[in-house]
Order: sequence, then C-alpha cells, then structure tokens
Amino acid sequence: MLVIKIGGGAAIGEGGYANFAEDLKQIEEPVVIVHGGNAEFSALSRQLGMPPRMITSASGRVTRYTNAATMDVMLMAYCGKVNKRLVATLQAAGIDAVGLSAIDGGIGRGRRKPVLRGTEDGKQKILRDDHAGTLEEIDPELVRLLLANGYTPVLTPPALGEEGVPINVDGDKLALELATALGAGGLLFFSDTPGLLRDRDDESTLISEIDAAQPESALGAAEGRMLVKVEAALRAVERGVGRVVFADGRVPQPITAALAGEGTTVRRAPTPVAR
Amino acid sequence: MLVIKIGGGAAIGEGGYANFAEDLKQIEEPVVIVHGGNAEFSALSRQLGMPPRMITSASGRVTRYTNAATMDVMLMAYCGKVNKRLVATLQAAGIDAVGLSAIDGGIGRGRRKPVLRGTEDGKQKILRDDHAGTLEEIDPELVRLLLANGYTPVLTPPALGEEGVPINVDGDKLALELATALGAGGLLFFSDTPGLLRDRDDESTLISEIDAAQPESALGAAEGRMLVKVEAALRAVERGVGRVVFADGRVPQPITAALAGEGTTVRRAPTPVAR
Repeated sequence: MLVIKIGGGAAIGEGGYANFAEDLKQIEEPVVIVHGGNAEFSALSRQLGMPPRMITSASGRVTRYTNAATMDVMLMAYCGKVNKRLVATLQAAGIDAVGLSAIDGGIGRGRRKPVLRGTEDGKQKILRDDHAGTLEEIDPELVRLLLANGYTPVLTPPALGEEGVPINVDGDKLALELATALGAGGLLFFSDTPGLLRDRDDESTLISEIDAAQPESALGAAEGRMLVKVEAALRAVERGVGRVVFADGRVPQPITAALAGEGTTVRRAPTPVAR
Repeated sequence: MLVIKIGGGAAIGEGGYANFAEDLKQIEEPVVIVHGGNAEFSALSRQLGMPPRMITSASGRVTRYTNAATMDVMLMAYCGKVNKRLVATLQAAGIDAVGLSAIDGGIGRGRRKPVLRGTEDGKQKILRDDHAGTLEEIDPELVRLLLANGYTPVLTPPALGEEGVPINVDGDKLALELATALGAGGLLFFSDTPGLLRDRDDESTLISEIDAAQPESALGAAEGRMLVKVEAALRAVERGVGRVVFADGRVPQPITAALAGEGTTVRRAPTPVAR
C-alpha cells in the first residue's frame, strides 16, 4: 500500500492532477492520496482581503496565522476546490476516489495553540484565536474501510480540534502519520522539485538515495523546510514505512518515476552479509 | 433509516447545526444527511465579484448560471465551508460524521446542459459553459458501506458530470433520489418555514398532513418552489419512501419535532378495511 502526498504549490495544478490520475491507473497496489492546497489558500485569502500573515517563532519556525475567518478560507480552498477538483479528475479516469478531510470520521485529531507568539515583518506580535495545531491522533479505520472496498481515499487537512474546531495541521505530517498507522510500503512526497538537492538552486545536485541508517551527509545538505521533511522521512522509515521518496510532481508519470528511483529515496539499506 | 435534508438558506446557520447534532444523538435509526449551501454560495460569489446570475426559462423556471469559475465557488461554499463546519459540529457531539459530495465515490452522476437560454433582468440571453445539470444516476454503495459501519454520511451537491466536470444539481433532488435508492423510512426536508402553508405569508395556515393518494387540495395550495417539493414528495412516497416531512429547521429539536408530526407530513394514508 502506498501513501502519496501531492504538494499544494502552484506548480502542480489541475493539469498535474490528470497526470496523477492517468499514472494511478497503472499502479496495482492500493493508494491513499493526501494533498495540500497552500497556493489556492493564499490566492483565495488575498481575493477575500485576508492576505496570509506569516509569523516567525523564536526558534525560527514560520507559521501561518489562522483565525476563524481564515479557517473558513482554508476549508474552502483545501476541502472545497482542491479536494473535489482532484476527486473529479480521478473519477473521470475511472479511479473510485473519495475525498475527505481529516475532520471526517475523526481521522485526524489534534490540539490547537490559540496564542501565537513571534515576529511579523520584524515586529514582535502576540496573536490570539489561532487555529493552527498539532496532529496528535490518527484513526485510520475509515481509510482502511474505504481501501478494503476498492475506494481510493483522497485526504486533506484540516483536522479535528476540541469542541469541533477545525485545526490547520501540516499535510506532510498527516501523510506521514497515516503511512505509519497503515504500515505503508511506500510514502511518496510530490512537490515542484526533483527531490532533495545538495544545492537547492542546482537540480544536478540531486541526492538519489539516503540510507536511513547513515543519514548524516544528507541531513547536512538539507535546510529549512526540506530538513524537516528529511527528518520526518527518517522517522517514518524507523517506524516501519518501507521507503520514503521525494519526487517531482510536475512530470507526466510522477508515481511510476518515483517508484523507479527518480527523486530522492530514503530507506534502510539492506545489511550486507558478514563474510 | 432516515434521510434528512438541511436547507442552505441563511436561517439555518452554524447555531442550527448544533441543534441538529444534539437532536441526532436521540435518534436511534441510521441517518443520512444532505445539505444545501445556497446562502454561503451567494455570499461568497458576491465577495469574489461574481454575483449570482438568475436566468428564467420560457417555462418560468429560474436557474442560476454556473460557469467554471462559479463552480469553483460552489465547491468552496458547499463542499468546503458548509460541509466541513457541519461535520465538525456533528463530530464534536459524538456523531461519527463523514462529509462527502455527490462527486465522491460516484454517488451522483448527471449530465450538464452547457447552453442556458432564458431571460436575465428581462433581457433574452443565451449563456454558454453552464455547469448546471440534472441528476441521472445514484450509486448508493458508498453511503450503504458507511451506514453499515456506524458512520453518518453528510452529503452535498455538486454531482459528477461527464469527463470529470462537477455539475450543479438540486440538493432536494439528491436527497430524494438517495432516500428512494436506500428505501428510507422517512425523508425530512428542513428549511426556514414551518412546512407547507396554504397562505405562504401566514404560518397559521400550515397543512399538517397530505394523503399521497389524494394530493389535490395540497397541490392546489402549493406554488413555485414549494409545488416542486410537494410533487417530488409524492413521487418519493409512490416509490417506497415511508413518509416525507417538510419541517422547520430553526427549532431546538428539529428532527424529533418533525417525526412527532410537526410540519407537513406526506404519506399514503392507511387504507380503511372494507366493512
């Protein structure tokens, strides 16, 4: 079983969905799709006069401030436009897709941290009523039920907070926790880069393999958001996911290419037999 | 098994969802919820600079013109904000709700009529690229699977058109076709009126019962959109749905009240035994 995360950047748009749909028809194992929607979220926020507010914490972590009104925009972008356009594209290709948020069936639960502290445009800020949170529990029962009955689940943040408050959780983390809970053979992250690059401005510096037992050199090369991804991938492999691949979501057969070794594959290398 | 349609008017808002959620906890039989989202759809359309365009056909039927951009707005309002806020409210009340559009799992399929002819503000118009359509097929398999496993499906338009194009179908019709396909014992339509009124400006003229075998007087009283609803209710009863109730969605225990006889109940009266 594979878990596929399709990034929410602008580069993988509706044309990209069709590539994934066509490619999925060639994949024999069951697949769970998780998608983002950040580009649509930001665009819709701007159209509605609520441009994204990015807050940098003391530790340098950048998060997006999500109040109740912004959460409605997130629901509209992720669960409305992106999820249903993707599901419709998959259905048209003959894949019996079912679109869900992590709220549905209580798939993902977490806790929000209503007070967000940090700097915004260099100024110290304390923002209240934040709806961003951390994924704390995964209940894969609904996803398993759908898979067992031939459906392809298509999942998206947000998740369910306390008292029915939707919370903005990280889509990569949702994919990773699902892959772990389901014991996936592979977890494929698709974005608008060919994989993990030693020099992020030079696609020829792609790191093709990372041995989860000896990740040091790869970790040295990664930075920022990519470092977070690589660390998460290492934990996933540790927790039983067969392999994690960071691959290009903009190519014609993205899944087939990633499974064939394109992009960056993180796995535990087979232990050589002692001679 | 009950199918409950919660209207998408402004009067049943998020406060109303909480009433439904609390009331549902008292209902022992399995429930499928279908909801609208018209008020949110119109509000979001206006915010995005795409105010609703209403076209009146030669036969007097008023439809909303839905081009591709407007369909995105519909997806955002119905499948994003309304569906997920309702599901989150139900989840918070302990009901294991799963929100779906009729696109998901191919639950509802139909055909769109891309050319819309009629008058707009008194002027003759021919509008192309319309995404409104007619529901032609219902596949209740996914809904049955969820019900059989203890989930409460929460469904919304749009449905799936050809080539993966979402189509704007009527939510009442979706509820009715589902109720028929599932052989529901009851189909309850909740809106912001107490039921079918002889005089729509006078709530004391509520028609409490309509005998599906003798609907003439009730049909005489109904007009416009309500006439369409009563005709649909009569067809549903004819096709095996136990009873159809038009009831008030703004009261504290809307489902309990409707099942207890509040509102307008349409059913086939028991045939008296010949003496």
